Amino acid sequence: MAATTTAKTNPGRFFEDYRLGEVIRHAVPRTVSGGERALYHALYPARHALYSSDEFARGAGLPSAPVDDLAAFHLVFGKTVPDISLNAVANLGYAEGRWHLPVYPGDTLRAESEVIGLKQNSNGKSGVVYVRTRGLNQRDEVVLDYVRWVMVRKRDLAAPAPETVIPELQKVIPAADLVIPDGLDFSGYDFDLAGEPHRWGDYVVGETIDHVDGVTVEEAEHMLATRLWQNTAKVHFDATFRPDGQRLIYGGHVISLARALSFNGLANAQMIVGLNGGAHANPCYSGLTVKAWSEVLDKAETGAPGVGAIRLRLVATSGGDPFTLKGADGKYLSHVLLDLDYWALMPV
Amino acid sequence: MAATTTAKTNPGRFFEDYRLGEVIRHAVPRTVSGGERALYHALYPARHALYSSDEFARGAGLPSAPVDDLAAFHLVFGKTVPDISLNAVANLGYAEGRWHLPVYPGDTLRAESEVIGLKQNSNGKSGVVYVRTRGLNQRDEVVLDYVRWVMVRKRDLAAPAPETVIPELQKVIPAADLVIPDGLDFSGYDFDLAGEPHRWGDYVVGETIDHVDGVTVEEAEHMLATRLWQNTAKVHFDATFRPDGQRLIYGGHVISLARALSFNGLANAQMIVGLNGGAHANPCYSGLTVKAWSEVLDKAETGAPGVGAIRLRLVATSGGDPFTLKGADGKYLSHVLLDLDYWALMPV
Amino acid sequence: MAATTTAKTNPGRFFEDYRLGEVIRHAVPRTVSGGERALYHALYPARHALYSSDEFARGAGLPSAPVDDLAAFHLVFGKTVPDISLNAVANLGYAEGRWHLPVYPGDTLRAESEVIGLKQNSNGKSGVVYVRTRGLNQRDEVVLDYVRWVMVRKRDLAAPAPETVIPELQKVIPAADLVIPDGLDFSGYDFDLAGEPHRWGDYVVGETIDHVDGVTVEEAEHMLATRLWQNTAKVHFDATFRPDGQRLIYGGHVISLARALSFNGLANAQMIVGLNGGAHANPCYSGLTVKAWSEVLDKAETGAPGVGAIRLRLVATSGGDPFTLKGADGKYLSHVLLDLDYWALMPV
Repeated sequence: MAATTTAKTNPGRFFEDYRLGEVIRHAVPRTVSGGERALYHALYPARHALYSSDEFARGAGLPSAPVDDLAAFHLVFGKTVPDISLNAVANLGYAEGRWHLPVYPGDTLRAESEVIGLKQNSNGKSGVVYVRTRGLNQRDEVVLDYVRWVMVRKRDLAAPAPETVIPELQKVIPAADLVIPDGLDFSGYDFDLAGEPHRWGDYVVGETIDHVDGVTVEEAEHMLATRLWQNTAKVHFDATFRPDGQRLIYGGHVISLARALSFNGLANAQMIVGLNGGAHANPCYSGLTVKAWSEVLDKAETGAPGVGAIRLRLVATSGGDPFTLKGADGKYLSHVLLDLDYWALMPV
Repeated sequence: MAATTTAKTNPGRFFEDYRLGEVIRHAVPRTVSGGERALYHALYPARHALYSSDEFARGAGLPSAPVDDLAAFHLVFGKTVPDISLNAVANLGYAEGRWHLPVYPGDTLRAESEVIGLKQNSNGKSGVVYVRTRGLNQRDEVVLDYVRWVMVRKRDLAAPAPETVIPELQKVIPAADLVIPDGLDFSGYDFDLAGEPHRWGDYVVGETIDHVDGVTVEEAEHMLATRLWQNTAKVHFDATFRPDGQRLIYGGHVISLARALSFNGLANAQMIVGLNGGAHANPCYSGLTVKAWSEVLDKAETGAPGVGAIRLRLVATSGGDPFTLKGADGKYLSHVLLDLDYWALMPV
Repeated sequence: MAATTTAKTNPGRFFEDYRLGEVIRHAVPRTVSGGERALYHALYPARHALYSSDEFARGAGLPSAPVDDLAAFHLVFGKTVPDISLNAVANLGYAEGRWHLPVYPGDTLRAESEVIGLKQNSNGKSGVVYVRTRGLNQRDEVVLDYVRWVMVRKRDLAAPAPETVIPELQKVIPAADLVIPDGLDFSGYDFDLAGEPHRWGDYVVGETIDHVDGVTVEEAEHMLATRLWQNTAKVHFDATFRPDGQRLIYGGHVISLARALSFNGLANAQMIVGLNGGAHANPCYSGLTVKAWSEVLDKAETGAPGVGAIRLRLVATSGGDPFTLKGADGKYLSHVLLDLDYWALMPV
């Protein structure tokens, strides 16, 4: 038999490959353990007590410390990359992200995405794909879901444009729609062990907090993290892939760095339960020093004992003045890496 | 008492220290946990579903997801270094490697090596030592074994040459001799979750696959990995050890990188059950970008339901054209890092 | 509501904030798992069998392999940083460190420190704070304690000096005060599996050992380690923090590196049970190659079967001649990084 070279590798999907309403089952389910939790603590300066201590978590009504909410997000997101963003030109946005169930060591996560919107660009070379991604556990329960939209290239420019469907997305998830984990109870919350005395009632809308600390990022670190999430996008790992020889840091790595840095000033914003939106304002590269600041956007009560909801803007920067975000032209300043809008749960 | 400086450190064995038939019990048994599994996923772009998800493994008849077969290999190999290769000039080859039992979190591995061949070199300064190494678990069951031969220096050039004994080694393990894990059953295999639709029947002997992806290697990464395997050879860690100031990357790190990269095109080549041979063609250093290609060398049926065996050549490179291996002189081209020949199990 | 910028971040304590006798409960308890153990093995060339193998530990009378004693120390130490050393000018010393209970996967550690001494410096700008720190598990049992003293800046130079109290500290913990873990029994110790034949009786007071191996340190490695211990001192992570643009390596990282390197020659010095003192003689930076040597300072019998105590000096260097420590001026030579004095347990 003559030798043959075949193309069994995944070329990824192009814009014309997506059909409105189809559900894509993503590959490579993943069981998490104490290993993922330990690595999360090694990769990020994460100190939120609820995710660090089984005892603290039990004191708050949970069976044990969950895996960090963002670790769950990254694990789900990573699975979608080969089907959604391999040929993506840009990651345009997130919306309607909600955490439905904490993820515990022993859980197995898988992911699926439903195509909920399509819009070919006027240049005919690419289009925007909207998907609602769900992360599911071994009991087929949804642990989190979110909407994401990306610009994807066409392979065949002659392929007909699909009917344009742009989903209606909430700019902000109403506090009443946030899912509070069963049994969560902050009425016996230990502020000493949590690290700061500031409770929900101490924060005011409009307040801004400079988280002060910074982390200079190394290539090995962001690659370890991104691989851990089984996100295999070439651009993060292969220094020969881009003309400039730089590896682009996975945007989620910056989210986790900034969130962990925000402990200093927001130690009691324990659980992330909603992702209203987010922009990766500028690319992040190894060698940059990531810092973070936050702004209180809103507050709401919840039905759970002692638990309040706080809506926060989390901004990651590579330096520059805190609390500066956009220039006179309305564009993000060059030192802004991330502008995230999320809901967290705090002791009232 | 006068101060004394003693030599309690391990000088390693020299060629004349090995006796045919002796069995060396290697030190430092190791219990593995979810931590080793998580680190494997952080260090390598590993995505084979059977090793990522307990649920997927149970669907294939195993009790849970094993630790990656190569992690088990590295852990066993690492234990042999202080006794076998501390004074080795060169790692000459592998043969007859077989995996007998999957390794699960909670298992404790130890290793022993039997000297099965000796041949002094004609220069009288070194010789070749052949060992069959066995990895054993806490129940003294063999989890894997393999033959390895290395060139080792003599300490005392006047030491008499041993009788030359060169073991007869199989060039290829017959498919009938491969050990299929008890209960393994791919008849209900989920190709969506595994990541690719290509089954055993879709591969033809002689077929070659370019795995496309690349990983640029950092010092911190290969040192973390090599330490994790408790392989403490100086050359991997101490930049002051070699005149060129470079740390040589453990050959097994390249094996794991290439195997993980081969997911893209061989996602269903799930379990490694045989190692027919392998050459570390050129040294690998930090900063190189490792890529991989494979060639289908053979296929065989197995008695297990839905399970076929596939024999693969796995080649790691630092760039250059895929599918090129040796020059007109029969020597490996300079961009070839690894040429490995192994058996894996796939759904038919 | 007008935007307000508030200072909710932790400014750290200044000298005048400490009161003699007060007990500070440190934040962020931490549950350890196999993940922390695996990471310890990836970060340090750790090979002591008792911490590597559950089977070996059971053979020595323990329920399973504990987490490395230094990992327990770092986890406790890390918790104290925000309260004790955020405004420290210098880490002056350690004394009376004892390990009371092994730490096992599943245990949750927290820490508290009692202020046991205060002395304002004559310049009126800073003072020395002495604390006794205790690490506690989920059953409120002390797992380790130690005294540490640091020089801390004053915020308000006009603040009155406290009464000077300098605690009486033992220069060396008497062997009789060392805590031997319940059930520890080295009478059936397997020297082959442990890696070296040298028993307690083979070491003589005054003996020195060059541990030979070296590890060149990378930024990613020490940051991963220091984060894992939840030690968030800026100086270790933020390359923009110091005028020289260098990240200072956490002193504990050097302790663990040196201890792991000391396996080669002291493989049977299994458990650390006492810390008599220690000095971080010179700062350590990425790119340096850490080596180690030891000196036997004392030996003592214990009541446990087959268990002897050995007092060791452990010196970490960045090169230079082993066994050299101080110059004619009595100051540490520039290549000396660490001078540690500890008690370990060995098979007699």
